[in-house]
This record gives sequence, structure tokens and C-alpha cells, in this order.
Amino acid sequence: MTDTTELQTEDGLRALVRAILERNGCRPEVAATLAANCVAAERDGSVSHGLFRVDGYVSTLRSGWVDGTAVPVVEDRAPGCIAVDAANGFTQVALAAARPAFVRKVRENGIAMLGIRNSHHLAALWPDVEPFAEEGLIALSMINSMTCSVPVGAKKPVFGTNPLAMAVPAGAEGVLVFDMATTTMANGDVRVARAEGRMLPPGTGVDRDGNPTGDPAAILDGGALVPFGGHKGSLISMMVELLCAGLGGGNFSWEFDWSTHPGAQTPHTGQLFICIDPARGGGLPFGLRAETLIAQMRAAGLDHFPGERRHHTRAQRAEGIPVSSGRMARLRALASGAE
Amino acid sequence: MTDTTELQTEDGLRALVRAILERNGCRPEVAATLAANCVAAERDGSVSHGLFRVDGYVSTLRSGWVDGTAVPVVEDRAPGCIAVDAANGFTQVALAAARPAFVRKVRENGIAMLGIRNSHHLAALWPDVEPFAEEGLIALSMINSMTCSVPVGAKKPVFGTNPLAMAVPAGAEGVLVFDMATTTMANGDVRVARAEGRMLPPGTGVDRDGNPTGDPAAILDGGALVPFGGHKGSLISMMVELLCAGLGGGNFSWEFDWSTHPGAQTPHTGQLFICIDPARGGGLPFGLRAETLIAQMRAAGLDHFPGERRHHTRAQRAEGIPVSSGRMARLRALASGAE
Repeated sequence: MTDTTELQTEDGLRALVRAILERNGCRPEVAATLAANCVAAERDGSVSHGLFRVDGYVSTLRSGWVDGTAVPVVEDRAPGCIAVDAANGFTQVALAAARPAFVRKVRENGIAMLGIRNSHHLAALWPDVEPFAEEGLIALSMINSMTCSVPVGAKKPVFGTNPLAMAVPAGAEGVLVFDMATTTMANGDVRVARAEGRMLPPGTGVDRDGNPTGDPAAILDGGALVPFGGHKGSLISMMVELLCAGLGGGNFSWEFDWSTHPGAQTPHTGQLFICIDPARGGGLPFGLRAETLIAQMRAAGLDHFPGERRHHTRAQRAEGIPVSSGRMARLRALASGAE
Repeated sequence: MTDTTELQTEDGLRALVRAILERNGCRPEVAATLAANCVAAERDGSVSHGLFRVDGYVSTLRSGWVDGTAVPVVEDRAPGCIAVDAANGFTQVALAAARPAFVRKVRENGIAMLGIRNSHHLAALWPDVEPFAEEGLIALSMINSMTCSVPVGAKKPVFGTNPLAMAVPAGAEGVLVFDMATTTMANGDVRVARAEGRMLPPGTGVDRDGNPTGDPAAILDGGALVPFGGHKGSLISMMVELLCAGLGGGNFSWEFDWSTHPGAQTPHTGQLFICIDPARGGGLPFGLRAETLIAQMRAAGLDHFPGERRHHTRAQRAEGIPVSSGRMARLRALASGAE
């Protein structure tokens, strides 16, 4: 059987994913928020965080690990600080609930932070930060996840993959966005390599005895990842734990036990945002300065910039998003309950 | 001639360095601020940023590149933002001028930022952030420097060594502090390796043709450093440029020309601080949570923590700081003008 490709609209895909999530216990606002996030990733060619994740959402919701009906509780903690108890729901829903007040604080104070705790995340971070940059703000976000990374100098894993993302408005260059695991590699990419029987670079992780390895099976089977960039990356991964769990009030990466919920795929931790209004900085208009930096990097031979490939893919897909017919059949079955 | 060691008091060393800086064109407050910074590094065993740097301060001041009499101009840019024009002086002086108002903003708003521009820095970053953590605040700082690092994917250097530092209050564990160049290595350490005829790890930098090398001479002689940790470290180095020069209003790392001031050693760029009052976060007391993370890392086999070695050295030196008699003779000559 050949697997052909169908062109889908963003609206159509969102409605389909929304229906799947509602059927699996999400209230409508939660379903709409997650569907928008997931379809945006698919649209941008960020396949590992796109429609591919729908099965993970479904199994997580069915396991009872996350509450799809949770209503986040937004707390005003200071003129520059908001904290949200996601009430065992998804972080994106907590972000959506706090976002208007948060942006107001950023514009009023020049800088503000938003800490989300008691929350779950199964997506990329860039969809969380990019919209801030699209409205002219600088956004940083980080999230700790499940223990799978050995701090440099330690023998056992402590940290999660602990991604860090940043988005900035870059004038005529659009928006610069990066989103990176602070491990050598994201967990999902190790699984993909194992499935493809492909070796990873030496030192991507350690085996069960703590020896450096590039074998994805050894990393996944009792081994662990390591932070990117040696002890410096390890410090940045530690920073993510300190700010998400220590400051924001989430669990540390080892402080939850999902073994009682088979099918659960979401770390139950915390997420932190720091956003800045660049007009309150000390210099020339920020967008112009970002353009200057990009021009200098380009003159030095750099030919692509963070986020650029996604934005290019997005622009090419104005007339539709290609999805395999196999994937569409699976989604339709999930939406109708005819799986 | 043997070089013996003399035990010095912190006060005595500060007075000596202050006298040297005043003799070389610093007003008394500037001399006192820089002397405190420099002696604190020496006291903590952070030798490469201690008394070793005095000659660099002197040659920089004599070159006319930095204004030792500069009076920083502090601007209140928003309830959460301060910008300082260092007026071609040292960043530490700008920080000292803005610090009381900045700490007030952090306590009132929960988070605040401080951007310093038109400024110079010849020291480590940890002395800038550690005092914030000692008064219970979380502090992040970064500074861009002189172009010497090739972005991953580019062919020529754009970034500086662009260090990033963080300090947090860690309850009974004291203060956690890290301070790291976002290049594979600090420039000074490459010079030390060359002086000692020692090879560095392969890929520490590139030679003049852009080929990866571990030869310090090749890196310094028309070559360059590279960011730590490949493309992820490169993104963090880019973040430092964006926040210090783009947001804070300093020069980018390539935007100044000190060739007209032989002897100048200080990049003329910008520095950014983001400080947070952890009591405004969403969780348990931050110090307790930091202790929990440290305990977990220790249980995983980690046996030293960032800043620990310095703090240990400091504690051991309560009765005096050992300085070689050769170094003392040089400092006394500089202070009396009898060089």
C-alpha cells in the first residue's frame, strides 16, 4: 500500500486535532490551545513536535496523568511577576490564561517573569516564545523535564533535557527564534536514531555503566544523555532546574513518578518565562541592532539563522500543509472514535 | 633570586591597588571600586583576574582608552529597568552607581534589568553577581567583548568570549555562582597555554585558514576561538550579543577600534543584569529548593559545586592572602611611581 500525501488547511487540521483532544477528556479551550500549538509545528515542518505528537497526547490523557479539564489559577505575585498553578494541566493552557496580564506587566515594567508550576508539556518551546517576538518583545523560556541527563562530574542522571528557547524581534529580518535541549540531543531524536539503527556521535550519552557512548540503544537502555558542551552546558542545565523548579515552584526533574500511569508521556514539572520590552533598553531601536548583528554574521559566512528554515517552510505552505494519508486516516479514526 | 611569598591583608592590598589606580588617572571612587574587585579575585584564588590584572588596568588607563574619571549617568527607563551610560568608564563603577536603585526595583517588582553601555570591563563576572545572591537575590549577568570567536557555520569571527554568570542563594549551602566564557576557553587561558608551550584540546579554536586546531599559537596568530558546545553554545553567545549590545545599547564586539590606543586591554561594549527576588516566585522558599537540588546532585556523585573552590580558598585566607614578593615589589613600584 502506498502512502500518498494530502494537502490540508491549517484550520482543518486544527479542528481535527481539537476533536481528538475533546474526545479524550480536554475541555474545549484546552483542546483548542493544544491543537493550535501542534498544527503550527506541523505547518512549520517541525515534524517531531507536530501531528506525530497526537498519539502521545491521547495516551497521556487516557492514562489519567494530566487533567484535560484543569483550570489554571493565575496569581499576581508582584508588579513584575505572575505565577500560575496549572492544576495538573498543560503549560500552554496556563500560559494562555496568564498571557494578557503578563504582556501588560512587560509593557508597564519593561521586564516581567511568569512561572508556571504543577504543569505538563509535550511540545516544542518555540511556539511559546515566538508570538511574544511577533508583538515586539524579547522572550526567554525554559522548562525542566524528566531525569535523563548526567551532570558533568556526576555518575547518575539528575537533569532533564531542560530546553531553553529565545525569540527576538529582528526588524526587517523578521523574528529570530532558537529552541534547544540543553542535553547533547533531545530524547525523541535518540529514539529515532535507535529505530533507524543509526549510531550517534561518540559521547552523546553514557551507557548503564556510565561509559561515554554513541549507541542510542545503550543510552536508552539504562544509560542516559549528558548535557551539551561539557561542564558549561551542565551549568546551563542546572540553571534551568533552579529557575523552573526552584524559582517557579515546579517539580525538579526527578520529583514525579509516572510509573503508575502507563502511557503518560509528559513530565510534570515547571516552566519559566522572562519577557522584556526592548524599547526600555538603553540603545538604538532593538530591531535595527538585531539586523546589524545578522548582517555581520552573514558577512562572516553564516547562511542560515535560527528559525529561518521553519519560517521558510511556513511561507511555502500558504496553500496547504502536506500530510500523509496514513497519518490522516489515523487522525480521523481518533476523532471519530473508530480506532 | 628566589621569589618568596608574603601574607597580605585584604585592606592592605586594596589600599595599594587603589593608590596605583589613582596615580594612573582614576578618581578615588573608581579606584576603590576596581581595587575591591581585583583584590576579591586574588583573595579567592581566582589568580587570572586578581593582582595579575593591575598592569592591564595601568596600561589601559595610560593609553587613554578608558576614562578613569568618568561619572556614569543613571537613567530610570521603566519601573523594572535601569540603563546606565558609563561615559567610557568601567562597568563596575556604573554598577555601583545604579545598584541601590536597581536592588529597590528588584525588590519592588520581583524582577528588574540593568543595562550598562559605553563601558569597559577587565575583570571576572562573578564579583558582579555574587553580592546579589548574598543578599538573597538571583542574579544573571552577561557581557560581550572583543571579536575573537567564529559563530558555528561562519568563516570569520564575530562574537567575543561573551561570558555569562549566575549567582543564586542556596540556603545552608551558601551561594552557588558560575561564571563562564561562552567560548571553549577564555582568551587569557589561551595565552597562558601558549606561554607554557602547552597544546589545547583539538577544536578549541581555528587557525587563520579556519581549520580546527588545538595549537594556542595558531589560535592567537590570525586564528580565533569558537563557541563552546557547537551550535548550541554559538546561539548562547549570540544571545549575549543581542542582550548586551542590542538591548543594553553597548557596542557589538566588532564595533570598536582600540588600535589607536596601544596598551588598551578592555573591550568597549555593554553589560546586562537581570535580577530576581525569589520570594516572588511560585514555590517553596528558594534556598530550600536549591539545597534539595544540590543534595540530589551530590547523591548522584557530584563532589564540587560552582563557586565552592573560591569560597573554600577565601575561608582559608582569613589570616592573610599570600602574594609573591616579586608581585608585591612591582605593585609598590607602581604605587610610588618608582617603576
